[in-house]
Amino acid sequence: MSRPDSPREGRLTGVGVGPGDPELLTTRALRVLHGADRVIAPTTALDAIGRAETIVRQAAPEVPIERLVFDMGASRQASHEAAAEQLLPALAAGDHVAFVTLGDPNVYSTFSSLVDALRRHVPDLSVETVPGIMAFQELASRAGVVVLDGTERLALVTALDGVADVARAIEDTEAAVVVYKGGRHLPEIARLLDKAGRSEGAVFGELLGLPGEQLKPVSEAGDQPATYLATVIVPPVRRERSDG
Amino acid sequence: MSRPDSPREGRLTGVGVGPGDPELLTTRALRVLHGADRVIAPTTALDAIGRAETIVRQAAPEVPIERLVFDMGASRQASHEAAAEQLLPALAAGDHVAFVTLGDPNVYSTFSSLVDALRRHVPDLSVETVPGIMAFQELASRAGVVVLDGTERLALVTALDGVADVARAIEDTEAAVVVYKGGRHLPEIARLLDKAGRSEGAVFGELLGLPGEQLKPVSEAGDQPATYLATVIVPPVRRERSDG
Repeated sequence: MSRPDSPREGRLTGVGVGPGDPELLTTRALRVLHGADRVIAPTTALDAIGRAETIVRQAAPEVPIERLVFDMGASRQASHEAAAEQLLPALAAGDHVAFVTLGDPNVYSTFSSLVDALRRHVPDLSVETVPGIMAFQELASRAGVVVLDGTERLALVTALDGVADVARAIEDTEAAVVVYKGGRHLPEIARLLDKAGRSEGAVFGELLGLPGEQLKPVSEAGDQPATYLATVIVPPVRRERSDG
Repeated sequence: MSRPDSPREGRLTGVGVGPGDPELLTTRALRVLHGADRVIAPTTALDAIGRAETIVRQAAPEVPIERLVFDMGASRQASHEAAAEQLLPALAAGDHVAFVTLGDPNVYSTFSSLVDALRRHVPDLSVETVPGIMAFQELASRAGVVVLDGTERLALVTALDGVADVARAIEDTEAAVVVYKGGRHLPEIARLLDKAGRSEGAVFGELLGLPGEQLKPVSEAGDQPATYLATVIVPPVRRERSDG
């Protein structure tokens, strides 16, 4: 694939492939995947198929996908640095490299850290992104939850290391609260919502559109932890739907 | 179009068509538009083409689109009630009606108010939605803004009637702030960001993917008001990109 005689400049596009259902790719994402010289998917091991690859295999079976290993044993920085180094030859050869990523490439994506690592080597690297449907949008659709109406607010927080941000966010009753990366703390989140009177309409989903998907009220899901990529939506408190 | 002898139950699907670029429709949205018995687009007058219709005309030119007038002179409730009444015959006849909406149908969309009005007539109406790319995602992509990384938070607020929610949200320097419906108050938003030291990296966009689109730093856009559908992204304060 290397083209040492090519005068083209390499470029990199982060392509959001949505949360799981291959039907949630956009036309723009499909066009980029079909037009790129190389399509790269993150994985934890060369013989393991990551989630983004699973989605692209279904949405665009004719597109060859190469795996790029992010070593979960190494530090985050070392892992991204090693991954970046593997992409440098293709970019130096002038290839258009598409990197597929779950959800949206500008929202909690490995893609931005990979770009940081690459720019330490190629400061003026040409980078673009293609937006993708985020997990909470698919959860709202599947669960029939109106996330925001009128002048309501949204707080999108994580609960990777604890539920402090969730506790703070749910104090605002006019805000919908979306929690990402909170699977491990799901029982604690369920208790918090219950105590704050925010359980009504709160839904939990994981692996939507992928094998093993789950979707249920948080009040029925809080008895055990869920996966890293679990999503929770807590709708705003709506006493009576004002429509005037 | 009425099928009085049909045993089917009518159903309604809210289809998100994204912010403007017809390439941002998902495969699922296109499938629903092609399969529905009727595709309805909101408009302010029968002889005016709304933005959602403009997008669908390009993304799926072969799909016939019917316009549904939302009377901007009437109260919101009266306007939705009148629109709902026009859809009732098709739903009673068992049609699958697709209603197209800018962005995502569960985030600040007319669709949820239309459903409320319809359910006053048909309490058990079957309703589904198809998620759509939101304006801020396209703005982030086009402007090269990483919205969220690590454990950063997002506050999505409106500024329709004033900038109080914006002022509160930007106090949290670890939060990205997205402002919708704030075009009229753009100069005031620009001043707020400047005063709070949050101007760096803040971008403004309107009509992205549609004729007349604008995209610039807020600091250069704050000299006059923008349209109703303007979007602002204020990234979190990032002293030094932590990657460890």
